Amino acid sequence: MNYRMILYMFGSVLKIESFALIVPFVTAICYKEQTSVIAYLICIALCFCVGKILTLFKPKSKEAYAKEGFITVALSWIIISIFGAFPFMITGHIPSFANAFFETVSGFTTTGASILKDVEALPKAHLMWRSFTHWLGGMGVLVFVMAVTPLFGKGSIHILKAESPGPSVSKLVPKVKSTAILLYGIYFVMTLVEIVLLLFGKMTLFEALTLSFGTAGTGGFSVLNSGISTYSPYIQYVITIFMILFGVNFSLYFILYFRERKSDIFKSEELRAYLGIIAAAIILIFINSSYLFKTVEEAFRHIAFSVGSIITTTGYTTCDFNIWPEFSRVILVLLMFIGACAGSTGGGIKVSRIIILLKSIKKEIRTTAHPRTTLKIKMNGRIIDHETVRGVNVFMASYVTIFMMALLIISIDNFNFTTNFTAVAATLNNIGPGLDLVGPTGNFSLFSDLSKYVLSMCMLIGRLEIFPMLLLFSPSTWRK
Amino acid sequence: MNYRMILYMFGSVLKIESFALIVPFVTAICYKEQTSVIAYLICIALCFCVGKILTLFKPKSKEAYAKEGFITVALSWIIISIFGAFPFMITGHIPSFANAFFETVSGFTTTGASILKDVEALPKAHLMWRSFTHWLGGMGVLVFVMAVTPLFGKGSIHILKAESPGPSVSKLVPKVKSTAILLYGIYFVMTLVEIVLLLFGKMTLFEALTLSFGTAGTGGFSVLNSGISTYSPYIQYVITIFMILFGVNFSLYFILYFRERKSDIFKSEELRAYLGIIAAAIILIFINSSYLFKTVEEAFRHIAFSVGSIITTTGYTTCDFNIWPEFSRVILVLLMFIGACAGSTGGGIKVSRIIILLKSIKKEIRTTAHPRTTLKIKMNGRIIDHETVRGVNVFMASYVTIFMMALLIISIDNFNFTTNFTAVAATLNNIGPGLDLVGPTGNFSLFSDLSKYVLSMCMLIGRLEIFPMLLLFSPSTWRK
Repeated sequence: MNYRMILYMFGSVLKIESFALIVPFVTAICYKEQTSVIAYLICIALCFCVGKILTLFKPKSKEAYAKEGFITVALSWIIISIFGAFPFMITGHIPSFANAFFETVSGFTTTGASILKDVEALPKAHLMWRSFTHWLGGMGVLVFVMAVTPLFGKGSIHILKAESPGPSVSKLVPKVKSTAILLYGIYFVMTLVEIVLLLFGKMTLFEALTLSFGTAGTGGFSVLNSGISTYSPYIQYVITIFMILFGVNFSLYFILYFRERKSDIFKSEELRAYLGIIAAAIILIFINSSYLFKTVEEAFRHIAFSVGSIITTTGYTTCDFNIWPEFSRVILVLLMFIGACAGSTGGGIKVSRIIILLKSIKKEIRTTAHPRTTLKIKMNGRIIDHETVRGVNVFMASYVTIFMMALLIISIDNFNFTTNFTAVAATLNNIGPGLDLVGPTGNFSLFSDLSKYVLSMCMLIGRLEIFPMLLLFSPSTWRK
Repeated sequence: MNYRMILYMFGSVLKIESFALIVPFVTAICYKEQTSVIAYLICIALCFCVGKILTLFKPKSKEAYAKEGFITVALSWIIISIFGAFPFMITGHIPSFANAFFETVSGFTTTGASILKDVEALPKAHLMWRSFTHWLGGMGVLVFVMAVTPLFGKGSIHILKAESPGPSVSKLVPKVKSTAILLYGIYFVMTLVEIVLLLFGKMTLFEALTLSFGTAGTGGFSVLNSGISTYSPYIQYVITIFMILFGVNFSLYFILYFRERKSDIFKSEELRAYLGIIAAAIILIFINSSYLFKTVEEAFRHIAFSVGSIITTTGYTTCDFNIWPEFSRVILVLLMFIGACAGSTGGGIKVSRIIILLKSIKKEIRTTAHPRTTLKIKMNGRIIDHETVRGVNVFMASYVTIFMMALLIISIDNFNFTTNFTAVAATLNNIGPGLDLVGPTGNFSLFSDLSKYVLSMCMLIGRLEIFPMLLLFSPSTWRK
């Protein structure tokens, strides 16, 4: 294990975090929130100093393999969440570490689950920090580090693999660093467009920024206790469309911007399945639940918003879907698991994994029925290699195992099954709200500290797609 | 597709069913239940005549491949369930076909889920038939046909594969027919021992027979509304032990009876894991729930009974575990999914599949950490071939997909999530009771006919371990 390399990376990540903390710091100055100004100043200094010390010693070798890449990513996310929790604790708004850590992890992992009962009581700086962690975590903190620092040798592809969601990582261009820059470029432009469109809807700049960060990262922290419910229909539609857009594989936007044959994006089976699932879910829920709304437009708007919010694992809410009939609620639970597209900022199992799993079932049936035929699983016209299929299968097995273990531990708190099941689903898939006690009108403050740590781990495991975290806790990783 | 072969098999199965129906017929005569006598006579005649007609034309070729084997098994189970439902309808005790079919499927698949609110109101003949279907379904209807009829050529291994639970079928002896005879021999002797032990406990012969059939098949239909709760502690302990024994892979009993090195059975990783899980579950639930019971013995007895009943997917109950704290309830839900050992009469995912999945996760972590090492998944000291591992993975993917689809459809009835989730879990894993409205004190009568058919399909899919049923409904199977 190249420990010096890993430590150096931690340093780089912390330095980047110290720069990121400037965003809420500036917010605090603008809104004249004195304690926040001090709190963020302390944290900026702390992150920068620790980061600087760690980067003083350059690693002898830049060599890094999968192991180093995965461990770096896993530990970096824990470290940034710990340091990112300090501002909340210093100002005293979230005094307990378990709560502050939960809230920060929820931010970086773009979950959006909160332990706060009254977000409007927070200083604007904290609200900005919460939303900005969504934006950073959405595309990946280490991807950002890769885009802006000169370091990273051969190991960079492993870091991209560990941090980017989906069954197989697709480099947009041959160089990993250029890929990172391109991804953040597209991400930045799209966020900017949303901010502008929200400003057109007569939103304040503060709200336009925070909500756009939350949409872009498919996070879901809002700045009002009422979530998104009190905004105008125009704003709700803009957010719906952008949530769905940020749930699309970014490589398709790369094709759209930089390639000549733009029609290629419609060849993506994942995109078609993703849009098909969204349409089907909206229609089914509309048939089942539209009687709860006053007008057809209102029903469509709230249902489309909720479907978009849940499948992309954003977690914004305009209405309390907890009171919908069970059929609609179950559709939402299924969407929670399906999740967004690979290579997007969304969480969940990912549409492409679901497609690969369904295709492997179909293949198994066919080979049983016709043993002499040899079949290959194809996606977008290309054969999927055996490694990827195996990876998806092992992912599913680990996913279910971790889900069950987390469910068991948090059930010690003795809340009901729906609450526990959807709390794990909402954190492991990085959504935010679940059903019942953790539904849109509830929050996660009711859980014990133990459960909060377990759910924090679920968020990290979900965001990093299991393996980096499993590697971290496996003794075999640390053996020579 | 060798259609004539398949039709001939249906005939054999129906003839066997007509003989099986003699058991409740004799019961009806003993208890002088006149309408039942007539009902069972009609059904015996019907099954025999249809069976005879179908077996009049011997197939030209005995050749049968996996496809024929799977389709034969899938359709045979549906056919015997339809014919087996007639007695309940003829006597008018379960007039609706949806209910009678559900009850019969629940019997044959050894689920034990019931739509009856008052089982004591049934004639003894019906109670005997319900329990006897458990016994037949437990070891397999077609395995029984194979054991007693001379037919079955090369295709017999595929039938054994389709009907026997577990990731890979193990023939006890080279000949499939001899394996079938041995399996039923061991099964018969063990059932007999339980009957004798229950008779020692001053049970009536009728109760000893029905409860032993239910235990042996890990079914769970009881003959009293109070389930097993009113029997003596001795009887409860006997049933607990036999439930756990019938959840063990029968090939281990073969070693115990017929092989010299009896210590080989303790080399079975599945057996050790199975007993370990049972012990751990009892201890954890005891710590969490024992305060609900008057004495330590009572707590241990009810908890051990419930754990044994759920993990082996029997579904007998001595107490209402629905009122236990959530932690204990979640343990039971997890046990529902784990299920018994491969090659036993129990249902669920099976301990060996769980072991293979966990080992493949471990392997994936290790190969990521140390890419140069090549690892093989071993079980009981032997390398598991790639086909088996892939089969387990595809099984899991199909299992989750079917689970989610069933959950979605039955949620139309608008019951709560816990009820729906555990209703699907209890039927797909062939257990019987779930939690909440389908808990030990509830039953499945509340569901709509649509949901009853869906849950009946879940029971069949669960008992036949998915693929025979998937093959039946896949268009590619029927293509030339």
